[in-house]
Amino acid sequence: MSKKSNVSKQALALHKKLGGKIRIEPAAPIRTRAQLSLVYTPGVAAVSSYVAKHPKEARHYTMKGRMVAVISDGSAVLGLGNIGALGALPVMEGKCAIFKTFAGVDAVPLVLDTQDTDEMVRTILAVAPAFGGINLEDISAPKCFEVERRVIDALDIPVMHDDQHGTAIVVLAGIINALKVAKKKIATARIVVLGAGAAGKATADLLHAAGARDIIVLDSKGIVNRSRPEPHKRALAKFNKRGIKGSLKEALIGADVLLGVSGPNLVKAEDIRLMAKNAIVLAMANPTPEIMPDEAKRGGAKIIGTGRSDFPNQINNSLAFPGVFRGALDNGVRKITMKMKINAARAIARLVPRPTPEKIIPDMFDKRAPKAVAKVIR
Amino acid sequence: MSKKSNVSKQALALHKKLGGKIRIEPAAPIRTRAQLSLVYTPGVAAVSSYVAKHPKEARHYTMKGRMVAVISDGSAVLGLGNIGALGALPVMEGKCAIFKTFAGVDAVPLVLDTQDTDEMVRTILAVAPAFGGINLEDISAPKCFEVERRVIDALDIPVMHDDQHGTAIVVLAGIINALKVAKKKIATARIVVLGAGAAGKATADLLHAAGARDIIVLDSKGIVNRSRPEPHKRALAKFNKRGIKGSLKEALIGADVLLGVSGPNLVKAEDIRLMAKNAIVLAMANPTPEIMPDEAKRGGAKIIGTGRSDFPNQINNSLAFPGVFRGALDNGVRKITMKMKINAARAIARLVPRPTPEKIIPDMFDKRAPKAVAKVIR
Repeated sequence: MSKKSNVSKQALALHKKLGGKIRIEPAAPIRTRAQLSLVYTPGVAAVSSYVAKHPKEARHYTMKGRMVAVISDGSAVLGLGNIGALGALPVMEGKCAIFKTFAGVDAVPLVLDTQDTDEMVRTILAVAPAFGGINLEDISAPKCFEVERRVIDALDIPVMHDDQHGTAIVVLAGIINALKVAKKKIATARIVVLGAGAAGKATADLLHAAGARDIIVLDSKGIVNRSRPEPHKRALAKFNKRGIKGSLKEALIGADVLLGVSGPNLVKAEDIRLMAKNAIVLAMANPTPEIMPDEAKRGGAKIIGTGRSDFPNQINNSLAFPGVFRGALDNGVRKITMKMKINAARAIARLVPRPTPEKIIPDMFDKRAPKAVAKVIR
Repeated sequence: MSKKSNVSKQALALHKKLGGKIRIEPAAPIRTRAQLSLVYTPGVAAVSSYVAKHPKEARHYTMKGRMVAVISDGSAVLGLGNIGALGALPVMEGKCAIFKTFAGVDAVPLVLDTQDTDEMVRTILAVAPAFGGINLEDISAPKCFEVERRVIDALDIPVMHDDQHGTAIVVLAGIINALKVAKKKIATARIVVLGAGAAGKATADLLHAAGARDIIVLDSKGIVNRSRPEPHKRALAKFNKRGIKGSLKEALIGADVLLGVSGPNLVKAEDIRLMAKNAIVLAMANPTPEIMPDEAKRGGAKIIGTGRSDFPNQINNSLAFPGVFRGALDNGVRKITMKMKINAARAIARLVPRPTPEKIIPDMFDKRAPKAVAKVIR
């Protein structure tokens, strides 16, 4: 705790000193009348007329070709929950700083003073023209599914809710390499996903699209089934091929992979003991995982990953999202497809050609990652 | 024309080369895990919690303390008219580049995919939390008045429609010095404002607040009176103290100041001849003024200004808006008041302590201007 609170104090001090984590810089100098006459009036009139007449050219003549909006309503911020727009802002600024540092993507935060689905969609569509992509962030489930779907349907620029798909891509990358270490195949692996929120839903979908055929998803009430009120949970129940019913224990019997995308300390060593040999445990709850790595090991897990930097195998979205938007912008991609996400996961996995139990995923500062991801987003 | 089209060609080439005129830069490096843990998780959680609990502190810990949104619906862009959101974007980017270059203000463009008043207000309010100020831009009259009023009323950050108040401030600065040259007083000067749109309305209001008592405003139908359908024009009719009726000619008889904020070539030398001795003519329509300086001079005008850089006395908003927002952010100002605008105009005027007919206003690159303006926005 003292280490934690020390980081908190340092972070508060740094933020106060910086006063915001991003800055705007002009791309061209405006020191002379001649320069001003090109960047602004009268020269800019020709650019405005041209872009108004040829909207598809906007991405070559304006910031639309390079600028991503990072948008949140603050309804599900980190592990802090619904702390609203202002509370979300420091996280979104951090994300924008990562976008630029990791992949050269210019990104600007927008935090919304509404948490109403219709109002959010309306607002996002209304501000979309200036942007070449939209990264939705920290929006609570199940609202996030509808918001994302409606925004994707309405716009011709890439839109991605990172809590869903960024997580799913990096988890799939980790699972690809972990299965390699465990000498198992995704098509026959028994996978348990603890958590049916944004990350659980998107990861289960992506695992299924990547060939997984036996996926049991649980929410706080146990294994999700077709009588759940939430449509996205009913859809997830279809992946439960063997029709397993009950709680986490029933799900874990003979399981090859446990993916935790829920909350702290929900899993015990005795649960892990129910799993198959060479069990893979990715406990992603942050900062406190579903099960601590040492306890998972005691339960017999062979390959263990978390979202934390102080244990091996840190599964972190930063490996995916910067490269996804870098690639989408560079390659003029209008929709991030399932195929692109699978290819992104494979590209990340390939950066660790000989995975071991302690190394299934590249370091999150691995500079090859955004490049490798960007290359396959096309 | 060949010079014009040359500038257009150069501007198009420059914009294509740049691909957008602003860039995002992180304010702190993210090269190590320790740095990342302060800028992003886990450290950022403490900042998010703190800001959520103490919203007034947000401007010290987030970009809200330094970031202005430059927002347009593209309904009245430069002299190009209603060219929509994408067409407006190059102008808004240019404005953001000027904000940073002239006054160190970080500003980001938002162009709206709606021109409906209610929808615009809703959108602006919904995205407001991240920003410390809102610069409305290139929104058509009379809608701009309602949008601005409603956004000002709803928010506790400075909001200014620059086409109105930026113009008004710089025009008032020019008129203060021009009256000094002409040895006339604002309280007794007869002022004619040709144009009852955004700039005409705001300038007439500011002139009145600064002591002018005889202001005749004209729209395309002639001198505005109390039977005009638009409320803002009926309000302007009250400044017509002598109850003059008719057209521009009737208005100009014995006038001391003609301010053109309308369109090209609407005034002739013979009109200027109707004015009083030492007549002041500020013909602001851009790029082609209401009357060209040489023709105004032939009509007997003594002091002549335009919006153009190729004639003396360039009356340009860039002298005002960067400093207005610089001051508002630095001094924690929540509303830009009439008094602040008058003080800003006086501060700009004071930068030319001994005005002459050829020099009533500082050069638009005068580095003292944003500082002098910022100082009085408090």
